[in-house]
Amino acid sequence: MADIQSVTRAQNIRYDRKTEALYIIDQSLLPNEEREIRLQTAEEMYDAIRSLRVRGAPAIGICAGYCMYVLAKSIRGEDQQVFLKKLSDYGEYLNSSRPTAVNLNWAIRLMLRTALENADCTRGQMLDALYEKAAAIHQDDIAKCRAISEYGLTLVEGGDGILTHCNAGPLATSWYGTALGPILLGTERGLKFRVFSDETRPLLQGARLTSYELQRAGVDVTLICDNMASIVMKNGWVQACFVGCDRVAANGDTANKIGTSGVAILARHYGIPFYVLGPTSTVDPDCPDGEHIPIELRDPEEIKTMWYQRPMALPEVKCYNPAFDVTDHELISGIVTEKGICRPPYTKSLAALSLKKA
Amino acid sequence: MADIQSVTRAQNIRYDRKTEALYIIDQSLLPNEEREIRLQTAEEMYDAIRSLRVRGAPAIGICAGYCMYVLAKSIRGEDQQVFLKKLSDYGEYLNSSRPTAVNLNWAIRLMLRTALENADCTRGQMLDALYEKAAAIHQDDIAKCRAISEYGLTLVEGGDGILTHCNAGPLATSWYGTALGPILLGTERGLKFRVFSDETRPLLQGARLTSYELQRAGVDVTLICDNMASIVMKNGWVQACFVGCDRVAANGDTANKIGTSGVAILARHYGIPFYVLGPTSTVDPDCPDGEHIPIELRDPEEIKTMWYQRPMALPEVKCYNPAFDVTDHELISGIVTEKGICRPPYTKSLAALSLKKA
Repeated sequence: MADIQSVTRAQNIRYDRKTEALYIIDQSLLPNEEREIRLQTAEEMYDAIRSLRVRGAPAIGICAGYCMYVLAKSIRGEDQQVFLKKLSDYGEYLNSSRPTAVNLNWAIRLMLRTALENADCTRGQMLDALYEKAAAIHQDDIAKCRAISEYGLTLVEGGDGILTHCNAGPLATSWYGTALGPILLGTERGLKFRVFSDETRPLLQGARLTSYELQRAGVDVTLICDNMASIVMKNGWVQACFVGCDRVAANGDTANKIGTSGVAILARHYGIPFYVLGPTSTVDPDCPDGEHIPIELRDPEEIKTMWYQRPMALPEVKCYNPAFDVTDHELISGIVTEKGICRPPYTKSLAALSLKKA
Repeated sequence: MADIQSVTRAQNIRYDRKTEALYIIDQSLLPNEEREIRLQTAEEMYDAIRSLRVRGAPAIGICAGYCMYVLAKSIRGEDQQVFLKKLSDYGEYLNSSRPTAVNLNWAIRLMLRTALENADCTRGQMLDALYEKAAAIHQDDIAKCRAISEYGLTLVEGGDGILTHCNAGPLATSWYGTALGPILLGTERGLKFRVFSDETRPLLQGARLTSYELQRAGVDVTLICDNMASIVMKNGWVQACFVGCDRVAANGDTANKIGTSGVAILARHYGIPFYVLGPTSTVDPDCPDGEHIPIELRDPEEIKTMWYQRPMALPEVKCYNPAFDVTDHELISGIVTEKGICRPPYTKSLAALSLKKA
């Protein structure tokens, strides 16, 4: 149990009040090295998000909260208007690091709203309020992941095979994770699952992070290439698909790691339920459908040269490298949030969560 | 045109009668190095096939023909029974290098049958007959690829987007290729296609070979990760899928590179025609359906460590690494052979090709 809790309750983002320092586990070095790095400047924070040292929509949100606090502390001078302007500029800068996940924007807005609400306070009170808000975002995510895990666990049985894509485990969130939450919570309770982890090209989060987290937690995990999901399903080894989400539109269309929509189409073909798991902060009620979700295009070198000993394609070959795709709501069997499991029609069930618009 | 013909008519397998030597382009070194290696011993030949230095079902068949000739030449002694037994043992050994492609077995059987038919000849006559047969397999493949390319070209129009998986170009066959044949032949005739090449994990034949061949031939090619096929289709960029095949069962079920079945399911979902292209030597009339096609399982290290600067998963993580999957005949819009395009129901249309059973 010690072993599994070191995974389910890992401290991937940690603000140390004694040394007044923000640390994250650098996910880009896993599974070969577990190293904490300290984030001090806005540039380091931007780079950490951009380079996926911290990744996973909820984790980015948690990290962004603490980042805003650290940056607020760094602002010199007493003028509140200048302070608010500078903090807002920092927020805009951080928010530009990645466009798709709504949590980044969501956390930054929460922090800026907190600053505005405390505009008349002393500097000390302002910083206290910002720290409390960042810590609240963090604690809130832990509670949400726990609730998502409990709800998700009602969808599977011990012995089930579960396929997951990318990484939506503790590293991508706070504790337990979203897509991996039911698996880890069930494992703590003695259930056995057989998990298939898509390696998730090009950044290999499934190989480097998901299979790492599950193996360390003692879960029966099998790593496959993304293009093996079809044969694994055809073999009858998969009873459910669990994936995370980066943004859920009001109609249930879901942006998640590139390849997720393909998994959903395969699952539909083989008659396997396909579930999206994520906190309600990932639902964007302002976004009517998937057409309105911006999709981040990343560097072709992630496909051609990154990780490799030598280039895997001619330098002049073009690449298309979208980081996300949108899974049509019609392919989704359920969206598991901390408030319960939404079922189709999502326009109705997501609206019933009465999420605040921006 | 010189440029494209250097691709469409590349000599990937070459028997030099002057120096009496068999050469292949070592495909495992592409795209970084174009190097010919000489195959002399049975062990070198076995390794070349096993390690995918020569790969692609038709190319393996061509190579196996010449290999049998080279091995026949190496057999010492005059006793014909001993000669035939030794050649048969070599055939069995080579045939064990890879289990899925039917062409390997097919070419070896052709060569052994030729030896048997010439059992009463002199050693010189026997070797001449074997050389002629090997060269005939080669010439025959060139003619077949050309015919497949012509038939395939009737299925698309200039301007079309075509998605392909793995590599079924000149490197995998003789000239033009099968899946890439219509694209290359059309390009020679001035048509423009936009080709999407799945990188094809874990061995990256799409990145290393397909995008290499198409780029060198001046075709507009875009490399994508396997899990990006869904978004590319959803974007409306694909009008047809062309793939090769390693074995086609009598009912049309088709074994091809792992991930092919997933592409077919996506194509069906998005309403895009999905074509299999291959010579009739790839059709196995003795095999009633996909259930009877053996699927090769390969080393997990191909997923976890091969190509990489450092391991991409914990050493203890299990992998499932099938080299092929079977695409259900119901997902296939047409099977393009040198004898014409077979349409469903395949049990009927493939039988009409009147292929000889083993």
